[in-house]
Amino acid sequence: MNLSKINLLHKFDLFQEQWTPKIVAELNGQQVKLAKVEGDFVWHSHENEDELFYIVKGELSLEFRDREVRLQEGEMLVVPRGVEHRPVAEKECWILLFEPGETKHTGEVESALTKNDQDWI
Amino acid sequence: MNLSKINLLHKFDLFQEQWTPKIVAELNGQQVKLAKVEGDFVWHSHENEDELFYIVKGELSLEFRDREVRLQEGEMLVVPRGVEHRPVAEKECWILLFEPGETKHTGEVESALTKNDQDWI
Repeated sequence: MNLSKINLLHKFDLFQEQWTPKIVAELNGQQVKLAKVEGDFVWHSHENEDELFYIVKGELSLEFRDREVRLQEGEMLVVPRGVEHRPVAEKECWILLFEPGETKHTGEVESALTKNDQDWI
Repeated sequence: MNLSKINLLHKFDLFQEQWTPKIVAELNGQQVKLAKVEGDFVWHSHENEDELFYIVKGELSLEFRDREVRLQEGEMLVVPRGVEHRPVAEKECWILLFEPGETKHTGEVESALTKNDQDWI
């Protein structure tokens, strides 16, 4: 039985790639993923999945078509399914994502940034 | 449309009760809950729900029938469904729980600690 604890900062030390979510836990069909992000991501939405963003380190701006929400360390936001959004980080930001296991990080959009094979770390 | 950000420490400032999870977000049928805990909780399990514990502040010991896992700030652990566990905190500890919306915090056990009406904050 896997009862291993997960230290978030230790996990972040294991990879450097940006915009490449790494899976660290799974429960009830949902996954916890960690990602390092910097710069502008693509506009996208997830048709059937709500997506939670939690900021572990740094700052992230979540752009929506009609507003922008700036998130700092220790803050989270749920992007409801179907809502177009674009994450933007001026400097590297470390984020935790919580979403269904089948969620693609670029949603319905295929882009050069799309990673179809998300790895566990 | 609710696109409000959730600042965890600000939310923890809104309540003092221990062992009384407060709901702060909902997505994909799952809820994010915050709780302040201190002392020994009851042994219990959740028949159909995996439960994620994340430590926001302090230290928590998760006791299982065959082992104990000590979690510190920034660490998380998933307790699989059906596994008996008991959270114990020597000093007040602030935790984040992620679990299905219908999860009772004392699982199948009815105890003096059971709260059937979990509130949003």
